[in-house]
Amino acid sequence: MAIKVLAFSGSLRKHSFNKKLVHNAAVLAESAGALVTEISLADYPLPLFNEDSEAETGMPDNGKRLKAMFADHNALIIGSPEYNGGITAVLKNTIDWISRPDGSDLKPFQDKWVALLSASPGALGGIRALPNVRFILSGLGCIVIPDQLAVNTANTAFAEDGSLVSMQQKQRLTTMINRLVDFATP
Amino acid sequence: MAIKVLAFSGSLRKHSFNKKLVHNAAVLAESAGALVTEISLADYPLPLFNEDSEAETGMPDNGKRLKAMFADHNALIIGSPEYNGGITAVLKNTIDWISRPDGSDLKPFQDKWVALLSASPGALGGIRALPNVRFILSGLGCIVIPDQLAVNTANTAFAEDGSLVSMQQKQRLTTMINRLVDFATP
Amino acid sequence: MAIKVLAFSGSLRKHSFNKKLVHNAAVLAESAGALVTEISLADYPLPLFNEDSEAETGMPDNGKRLKAMFADHNALIIGSPEYNGGITAVLKNTIDWISRPDGSDLKPFQDKWVALLSASPGALGGIRALPNVRFILSGLGCIVIPDQLAVNTANTAFAEDGSLVSMQQKQRLTTMINRLVDFATP
Amino acid sequence: MAIKVLAFSGSLRKHSFNKKLVHNAAVLAESAGALVTEISLADYPLPLFNEDSEAETGMPDNGKRLKAMFADHNALIIGSPEYNGGITAVLKNTIDWISRPDGSDLKPFQDKWVALLSASPGALGGIRALPNVRFILSGLGCIVIPDQLAVNTANTAFAEDGSLVSMQQKQRLTTMINRLVDFATP
Repeated sequence: MAIKVLAFSGSLRKHSFNKKLVHNAAVLAESAGALVTEISLADYPLPLFNEDSEAETGMPDNGKRLKAMFADHNALIIGSPEYNGGITAVLKNTIDWISRPDGSDLKPFQDKWVALLSASPGALGGIRALPNVRFILSGLGCIVIPDQLAVNTANTAFAEDGSLVSMQQKQRLTTMINRLVDFATP
Repeated sequence: MAIKVLAFSGSLRKHSFNKKLVHNAAVLAESAGALVTEISLADYPLPLFNEDSEAETGMPDNGKRLKAMFADHNALIIGSPEYNGGITAVLKNTIDWISRPDGSDLKPFQDKWVALLSASPGALGGIRALPNVRFILSGLGCIVIPDQLAVNTANTAFAEDGSLVSMQQKQRLTTMINRLVDFATP
Repeated sequence: MAIKVLAFSGSLRKHSFNKKLVHNAAVLAESAGALVTEISLADYPLPLFNEDSEAETGMPDNGKRLKAMFADHNALIIGSPEYNGGITAVLKNTIDWISRPDGSDLKPFQDKWVALLSASPGALGGIRALPNVRFILSGLGCIVIPDQLAVNTANTAFAEDGSLVSMQQKQRLTTMINRLVDFATP
Repeated sequence: MAIKVLAFSGSLRKHSFNKKLVHNAAVLAESAGALVTEISLADYPLPLFNEDSEAETGMPDNGKRLKAMFADHNALIIGSPEYNGGITAVLKNTIDWISRPDGSDLKPFQDKWVALLSASPGALGGIRALPNVRFILSGLGCIVIPDQLAVNTANTAFAEDGSLVSMQQKQRLTTMINRLVDFATP
């Protein structure tokens, strides 16, 4: 049976480089036989996490939706922009919300296989944020595969049709996503 | 002339342990001769950072207010809770917003002296989030002093009047805040 | 066919707590059906890595031995002491040496499954070194499983016969090592 | 009175890029009025730290020499190569040894001002090792200044006479070292 992969970017921007990179990875995961759900966190707005409002009104509906979605997939593909050397607030906020109890027994992170990507217009490609995300997700029980791809000078990295220009990056991404699907297949 | 210290917690919770710890530090900074501004990030709500909405409507007013406030102080005392081994979304979101251009020449982080605190009901006291915050603030030009205090089992760490129970922790915090004020005094 | 697990501590000390903890894990890995090789890095002394001497005399014999040994096993159990908040020099030196070319095609890290342990007489159990080791090994292609165990106040954590006193720690270690063996079994 | 700056590279290689970069910084520190001691860790060989041999024979003489030297300087300039995404074993080993008691009251790290540099033939310039070194030194009481310089493609970064080719890097290094000397001047 095909495994299920959830793919999204840690950015709210509509035309974000990370979204493009994630889409490249999503297509590759489908070619590798996975069922891929590509979402945008912008479609699941959540308030900044606040224990007081959580105590009053519980997990917001979008939190429940995302938590159920994470739990229902075998693997995650995450495009993580680097903001000031770290994880984006929207990605951290999403992770923090769905790590909270919501009355269900759903396990959104435990044993999920994760591939981390990053794209940035700068010279480093977001390389400083990925250890941050890797550490947080490992602490939650995800198995983050060692392969990662940080695409630098991202404004020239994608062709008109959104595909990666560099054959070497295409190849690395293909290998990486194939391995993710392999690992996540029971 | 007295230096100015801005003190706040990276949590939105009204009765957060980190807020209590920050208040202890704020009192000590005043005793050391500093002018202290104690704020709550809950009073400066900001949307999750989104480059698209930034392009449309620019920096929100609360972002401008916070940026001006950071720029106007010589030092920061930050109580940083640990959520899932990392920085809170609200603290990261605040940092990310005010690191952005807003038409002013204000430098909210450059050469600010920073003392990092953490309090947590758990056994580790939030020790895993402080390196994350330290790295991000150093990258922005802050001089984060090496002294830090992580208060564990925080539910029993504070007396009725909000002061730290442990004489040893009081002493460490006093030394640390005196050093912060010393460093930040030109 | 049984998988092969290499187990060692990142300390040269004869009666190190990490060695004891690693031995507990090794016994559990054998119970789980793995073939376990338990070694001490003290038996494979290596000079501090130096590119000049490498250029002159190549990889030392102990480096070649260790590299071949790593390559020949499916999984690693590493007890990593925390020295000054980071990896030990002897563990880093070993990793750096065997990551170098030695004329063979052996891959000592690629796709090795790794379980990280730490024991320390202090209150934190070495929790600050594990992210350091996790990051380095992930960068080399290891799949470090998310489960980890940091045993604090290690001077009272082991019984006369060397076994862990705490039933909870025993249980966590058992679960963790079973998962390691499961993951590493093709 | 002039402050004293100790400058060295975390590599044993004779013609290491980091040594060249450190020398550039040392010259700038002297121009800024500091007394600079430039050393090579290769001249202070230490065995890999081992608590057993420490218990038997105490701190080696080179450890004592280095500890006294660190204690006698106000600031450190460290060129830290990146080996496998982290600190070099020789740098970590030196730090670990001199952080140990040697019967003296010398404080080798407390309140030392530190500037971190890195040079590497690769594209990233060693950017992944500096957070590792920053975290370790901060934990020991050093005040690591936020400015840092990672020189990439280092094989073409230096002129015949050893000086940096790029005017921009020269400028950044000058600013950074001037600030270090400023900070460290009481």
